Order: sequence, then C-alpha cells, then structure tokens
Amino acid sequence: MSGSDRPLSEGEPILLYRKGERSIPLSLVAGKRVVQGFGVVDLTPAIGLREGDTLTVAGTPYTLLRPSLRDLIATWPRATQIVTPKDAGYLLYLANVSPGSVVIETGTGSGALTLFLARAVGADGRVITYDRRPEHQKVARERLAFAGVADRVTFREGDAAAGFQESAVDAVVLDVPEPWALLPAVVQALRTGGSLVTYTPTYNQLERTVRAIREGPFGEVTALELIERPLHVGEGGTRPSFEMLGHTGFLAGARKVASAP
Amino acid sequence: MSGSDRPLSEGEPILLYRKGERSIPLSLVAGKRVVQGFGVVDLTPAIGLREGDTLTVAGTPYTLLRPSLRDLIATWPRATQIVTPKDAGYLLYLANVSPGSVVIETGTGSGALTLFLARAVGADGRVITYDRRPEHQKVARERLAFAGVADRVTFREGDAAAGFQESAVDAVVLDVPEPWALLPAVVQALRTGGSLVTYTPTYNQLERTVRAIREGPFGEVTALELIERPLHVGEGGTRPSFEMLGHTGFLAGARKVASAP
Amino acid sequence: MSGSDRPLSEGEPILLYRKGERSIPLSLVAGKRVVQGFGVVDLTPAIGLREGDTLTVAGTPYTLLRPSLRDLIATWPRATQIVTPKDAGYLLYLANVSPGSVVIETGTGSGALTLFLARAVGADGRVITYDRRPEHQKVARERLAFAGVADRVTFREGDAAAGFQESAVDAVVLDVPEPWALLPAVVQALRTGGSLVTYTPTYNQLERTVRAIREGPFGEVTALELIERPLHVGEGGTRPSFEMLGHTGFLAGARKVASAP
Amino acid sequence: MSGSDRPLSEGEPILLYRKGERSIPLSLVAGKRVVQGFGVVDLTPAIGLREGDTLTVAGTPYTLLRPSLRDLIATWPRATQIVTPKDAGYLLYLANVSPGSVVIETGTGSGALTLFLARAVGADGRVITYDRRPEHQKVARERLAFAGVADRVTFREGDAAAGFQESAVDAVVLDVPEPWALLPAVVQALRTGGSLVTYTPTYNQLERTVRAIREGPFGEVTALELIERPLHVGEGGTRPSFEMLGHTGFLAGARKVASAP
Repeated sequence: MSGSDRPLSEGEPILLYRKGERSIPLSLVAGKRVVQGFGVVDLTPAIGLREGDTLTVAGTPYTLLRPSLRDLIATWPRATQIVTPKDAGYLLYLANVSPGSVVIETGTGSGALTLFLARAVGADGRVITYDRRPEHQKVARERLAFAGVADRVTFREGDAAAGFQESAVDAVVLDVPEPWALLPAVVQALRTGGSLVTYTPTYNQLERTVRAIREGPFGEVTALELIERPLHVGEGGTRPSFEMLGHTGFLAGARKVASAP
Repeated sequence: MSGSDRPLSEGEPILLYRKGERSIPLSLVAGKRVVQGFGVVDLTPAIGLREGDTLTVAGTPYTLLRPSLRDLIATWPRATQIVTPKDAGYLLYLANVSPGSVVIETGTGSGALTLFLARAVGADGRVITYDRRPEHQKVARERLAFAGVADRVTFREGDAAAGFQESAVDAVVLDVPEPWALLPAVVQALRTGGSLVTYTPTYNQLERTVRAIREGPFGEVTALELIERPLHVGEGGTRPSFEMLGHTGFLAGARKVASAP
Repeated sequence: MSGSDRPLSEGEPILLYRKGERSIPLSLVAGKRVVQGFGVVDLTPAIGLREGDTLTVAGTPYTLLRPSLRDLIATWPRATQIVTPKDAGYLLYLANVSPGSVVIETGTGSGALTLFLARAVGADGRVITYDRRPEHQKVARERLAFAGVADRVTFREGDAAAGFQESAVDAVVLDVPEPWALLPAVVQALRTGGSLVTYTPTYNQLERTVRAIREGPFGEVTALELIERPLHVGEGGTRPSFEMLGHTGFLAGARKVASAP
Repeated sequence: MSGSDRPLSEGEPILLYRKGERSIPLSLVAGKRVVQGFGVVDLTPAIGLREGDTLTVAGTPYTLLRPSLRDLIATWPRATQIVTPKDAGYLLYLANVSPGSVVIETGTGSGALTLFLARAVGADGRVITYDRRPEHQKVARERLAFAGVADRVTFREGDAAAGFQESAVDAVVLDVPEPWALLPAVVQALRTGGSLVTYTPTYNQLERTVRAIREGPFGEVTALELIERPLHVGEGGTRPSFEMLGHTGFLAGARKVASAP
C-alpha cells in the first residue's frame, strides 16, 4: 500500500503546492493561525483530504502534497552547515544503514543528517544523536518532530569524547572537527562488522582521521569526495549551471573487523 | 537490537575477512564444496557463530562478517553497466524512498540499483523491476536472492512502454535509453505526490527527458550529476587519486503534482 | 634582459601595490588627476622609477609594480562574459600559438582573449579580431591600448560569416554562438596545418560544432572542458574553496590537414 | 607572414599525417633511414615542400605538416610525470610569461614544461632549467633540440637549493617535491614584480608551500587546481568521457612585491 491512500491527518506536515511558487512545508493543525507568506489561514478543511486534492487558501487553489525529504530540507536556512544530500546519500551507503539499523551520530548539528538517518532506519531502527550544544539539539529536535520521525531518535546532550552510552550499534557517523579523538569511543560502541563514517571539511582532518582509523581494528578503509554539478536545461540548450557549491566535505568509511583489544 | 547479536544462519551471505586480502561474499551452506580462491571448503562450523568470530579455512584464520552493501556490489563484474553507489544514494533521495515505499524500476540491468532499492524499502516495502531481457533478470534475481532481499522484489519481464501493471506507487526510477517514451506509463503508475527519477548517460538524453517531464503533470524538476573523487592518503601525503571514473550518468528528478488528465 | 631593469615610462600601466589592498592598474601619466579610490593624485614622481620602488600617495607608501596579465584582467567587470584564464591558457595551446603567430579571433567580446592572444603572439605576431558590435570593439580597443599591445591587434567590425579578409593565418579562434556557420570562412582563412579552436557554453553547441568540424578538412579533433577549483589555505587547514564558478565553456580543437576543395 | 609559406627545411620536425592513424613527429633529414612504424624511408623529397603537400611513403600518401606543440608532446611516454597542457597553460598565465621573458624552471623533468616555456618566451626570451639528474636533462635536451627551441634554453645540472646563478629574472617555476626549501633562492633570483609558480601533487606540499610563500616578500598569492574533462561526441550523443585522469597537481602563484631584506 502506498502513502497516497492514507488521508492527511492532523499533525502531519503538508505542502501547499503551486507551480512556479516556492512551497513551504506546514504542520496540518485545525483552527486559524498565522502562516508566513499566507497571513491568517485555516487548514482544517485539509484534514481528511488526500495528496493531489485541491485546497483553496485566500482565494488561491493549491495542490495538497506530503513534503518529500527534499522539500523538508529545502526550507532550512543555509546558514547552518547542513550535510548535503549527495553526502548524506553516500554516507548511508558507507554506513551500510538499512531499515532496523541502530546508528550513533555526533554532532547533531542542523539535524539534516539525523533526518536522513531516521528516515533510513525506519520505525524499527534507532538513531542516537549526540551534541554538546543544547541549542543545536533543540532546533534539530523540532525539525525531526515536524517530520514525524522524532520517535525513533534519541537526543543526548554531552561530550561524546567521554564515551557513548550505547554498545553493539550497527554504525557510527562522526561529523565533528576531530574525529580521531573519538575513535576509542567508536571502537567501544560499534559491533564487530559495524561501520564508521566520518565527514570533515579539510584535507588535514581527513588525513589525520584516515591514519588514526588505520591504526585501529578497522578494515575496508576508503576516502573520497563527491562533487555535485547542477545542470541547466534552457531554451538555448543544456549546460552545467554557473552556480555551484565548490566544496562540502570529505568522506571516510571503514568497518570494524576485529573485537576491541 | 543490532544485527551482530544474531548468530550466522544457514543460507545467509558471509564474508571471510582477512586484512589486505580481497574478500568475496559466500553463501553460508553446510557441507563441503568448491569455492573460488579457496578450493574445497566446509563452512559448516560457521553456522551459529557471530560476526567477529574466527573461522580457520585451509589453515588460515579469517574473521567472519556479514557482507555490507558495499561488499556485495564490489564483487560484481564491472563489465555490466552498474549504477554507482554515489548515483544510487542520490537517486534514493530524489525518489524519496523510505522503509515501506513501493517503487517501480526499469530496467533491471545488473540489479545494483534493484539491490539499493530493496534494501531501502525494507521488508514492508516492495520493488517491482521491469526488464525485457530475461538474461538480465536471471542474474539480478540470483544476486538479490543471495543478498537475502528477493522476497520484497517482483521481477517482471516485458516492455514497460506498454504500461506498468502497478498503480499508485510511491516512486518510479527509469534507467533506460529513452525515458521520455515511458512518461505516459509513469504518469499512470505513479500516485500524486510520488517521485520520478531518471538516469541517462548523455546530455541529449537528459535534455529530451527534462523537456518531456516539464510538459507533464510534474513539479520540482531538477537535474544534476555527481562526480566521485577517490582520495589517496599515503606516506607522502594526501591527494586525489590518479585513477578516477570520468563519467557515469546524469540524474533528473521530479514529483507528480497533479492527477493525470 | 628582464623587464625590471627598464624604468617606468609615461604611458605605461602601473600598479600601486599595498599588502591587503586591492590594486587597480593605472596609466602612468604626468600631472594631477582624479583616480578612483585615491582622489586627486599626481603620479609624475613615478616616471623614471623602477618596479619595487616606493611611491607615497596621499601619505600612504605604495610599491610600484607593472601589472601582470592577471592584474589587468582582475579589474574588468565580471558582467561581461570573459574567457577565463584556464580556458584562455588551454586555448592558446590548442591554437598552437607562439611568438610571431598570426591569429584571427571572433568575436572580440570583452577583449580578454584578445589580450591573451596579443601577449602570446608578441610584437612580431598579429591578432585580427572581428566583432559586429562596435561598442564591444571600443571597450576592447581601450583595454588593449592600456595594456600596451594594441599595435599588434587589428580590429575589424563586421560579419565574419561573410568571410574573413585574411588568408593563410596560423590559427582561428571562434567564440561565437554558432561556430559551425563560420567553418567555410575558417577553411578559407586558415593555412593548411593551422589550428581551429572553438569555445561554446552548451553541449548542443559543442556537439554541432564537433560534428561540423569532422565533415571538413580537419584532423586531430578534440573536445574537453576545464574545471577550476580554487583552494583555500587557512588557519584550520587546507580545503577547496566553497565558492566556485560552476561552468564557463567547452573547448574544441582541430587542425586543418588538407587544402580546401 | 605565417609559417606555412616557409618550405620545409632539413632538420625541422615534420608530421606524416593520415586520417585515422597516429602520427609520430619525425626529423626531416636527407637520406635513407629506419623509422619506427615505416621501415626504411627516405624523406629527402619532402625537403622544400610545404605543409599540406603530399608525400608518398611506402606506397601510402601522407599529408606533410609541421607538428604542433600538442603533436610533439603526445608522443612522449606517459611513464615520465609530464606537466599536462592544462596545468602548463595556466602556469604560463600565473608566471606572466610573454615573448622576451627570462624564466628559471626547476626541475627539468620530462622537459614538457620546458618546451611550453621555451615556446612562450620566443627567440628573444630565455629559459634556464635546473635538474640534478643528468639523465633527465639529457632526454629533455634532445626533445627541445628536436622541437627546434634548444637555442633559447640553458640547461644547468646541479642543486638549485644552493642558489640559482641568475638574478633579476621575470619568473621562477618550481616543480620539485619541496618548493618551500627553494624560496630563499627564488627571492634572490627573482626581480621585484616577478612571478613565482609552484606545482605539487599533494595537499601537504601545497599547504606548506603557500604558508612559506606568505612569510616571504610575496603578494597576490593564489592556489588552485584544474580538472580536465575530455568530452565524447559519438553517434548516440554527447557525454563526458569515461576515461579521465583523476589528478595531476596543485598550482600556487605569487608575485615578489618587495626587495629581499
């Protein structure tokens, strides 16, 4: 059964879609309220409708949709350093994440990677996300609640360097400035066969991380970066876009192939 | 609970890992048999052991692991045009796939993308994969069975241009030479709000596909390519690898935002 | 003998260099005048000095330098579509330009490529640059005069499609929307053994150009693009820059290997 | 006057061109001799002919051409680490080289960059190339003699770290493992206003080089890399080539903006 058969229910995020406009995901709640870009609206009539149905707001008809992962992330401010989809997608692959996986992530940051992980592990999996900055956790927690996947995420404030509280997890993802400092904690928390992935912006960090990983009980070590090139299909033909993000981060991946000493 | 707590059981794929050697996933079956690279082996003692345990084969100790998605794909011959992990990861994102999703894919090809999709939709989801070449389907079917996810995949031989048998699916992924020719079938099969992703090697194909998508009931159209740059951390320092795959394919993504006319 | 031994003479472009400031090339002329960013200045005392000498302007000491090619181009407004140094450098290679070469270029555009060509052919070579837009030629002419190389450049207004006035030239460089339309004129103007290079922003243009070249008396046909990645060496380490130009243009090169029919 | 008007003279390099065959530059000498790929040939009849004329060798007609810079380099074995044209072209730009320039280069290596430099400085310029390995110098010397530009090149065997013999040169190009160690020698040899360019394969080398340059009497410091993407225009459409060189080296550039202390 696919998602479209389910009627939209209160509390879900929805998208008021209209061609050519920027769509901002909204929480479907009953009653009047002020919504940025719309003024005072009452979304109550949308409850019980289905994706593809039309809702007229302030005289303008919109198509009702559930926001995709891409819709959800598109509206987050770029100011926060967000793990990009290209990196998140490859990171899930290196972390060997699938429905049911138990994954530790640190730091929580913007919550973008947390959302990717929470979606990928599904209702039977779990994401434990560490961050020492409560204000980061607060924003991320709200975003994951909005996306409807907060129930499968554990937020832990505090210093991962002191060790993770979990053990025998399937994967650990490090998005911190000094991943090498956390390797002892990773070795303790990760099950044998589990995966480690790191994400760092500089070559210096990547190099030190890879060298440290090689000295530990890890195998299948790999390092790479992904470059995303948007493409423009216009009247005059097709070409790469002039605008492009020049750099995000380097990925390193490894599997724990032996028990800790 | 994480995977490592489960003992290895008969029929599962396993990995005999040994540092510095290339590991080839094997099916864990009882009894003696000939295994490429090992000669005659008897893996029976591995049944009931756990990841991280040691198995001695022909006098050499190996660490027992479950193969990761990366391990599984790494051993497939490159001759077949395989959707690369970087593209598969981003494709899952554009297709908005999560546990429970119902996804149509065509063509089956090597089965690499089928495996990515089958893993991502989980036991509650479903992948329906079309290919008109029975020999492709045969190989892919074996690979997915080996990986233990064949139960969630439906193989359909035949011409998708005549229409898909499914309706209201969450996503359709087209890895065919002429994606534009399948758009009417896609519109019929896809639920409103569902996602379409195409993967094509030339600019001409990308351009024609994007133009055709724009004429249909689709929104949020995007096009891009990913370039993967392996990194080498060696004695003398860190640099991009000299060897690199210069090109794979271009991705286009869109959502069905209106009912078919 | 190197340039630094020559004293700075009136009419030359100079650079008032000061660490951390953006340096704008100025024409060294005697007498007071208003200079953007400086107010009223009198550069007369700089005449006869040498590179590396200090000139105090409005109480601030500056190092006198001759502007490099990079200094000259850096101050041109980006609004004009400027052939980038990476492309210009490779284009000179494909065009097989060296001191003494005679090169046709069309269109003149911003004059950036004209300047690269004029510098590379030297005082014994010649650049003939066609453009149908007098306003482009005017700006380019001033820029080349400022750079001191206008004497080796011939500006021709008018439509190159009607044919070039020159014959037996060493190279022709096409930076126009429809290079294929000019190939008959190129074949007439180019000596056997001479080089053709084209520069176009879209794949469609590149493809049509390459196919047309292949049908003509050309050999050694090649096509490529260059991606420039700025690098940032900062306190925290080294990484690619976040800012990057996503695309400029595609280069195609060929040699005329037979006489025109 | 363009080159084609000059008849081919003894001692020049020539190219026997034939569509679809790989052309190898040959020295035009009178008399019979063994030429790889042709057997015994006598090129004497070619003396006095012009580019575009036909010469029949062993019953097959060839078009006579002068080899371009690209033709010359294309036949050098790849085994030697050759500075690629994309890097050489940009390097000439950063070094601000033009006809008449005096340039120091170290090391000589394969002689590829030496050839680029020798062509760019012209008959009025000079390239002084240092290398401590006589066997490198020997090969490079032969290649430059073959290309007809050896007269403008000075080969110096020995250790540049001990200092360059020249002073007030226009540019210094460092293609050595430890560029930072040569900076004192560079500062002594370079005129104020002159340019320094370095070319190094790892990030570690680039970073150390840039940091060292910043501590010296240099300004306008820049660092970047170029990625070359070959393009394939085929029957089925246009796409980037599957084969691609993943990495060559990083470029850093700077100008000497103050006299040495």
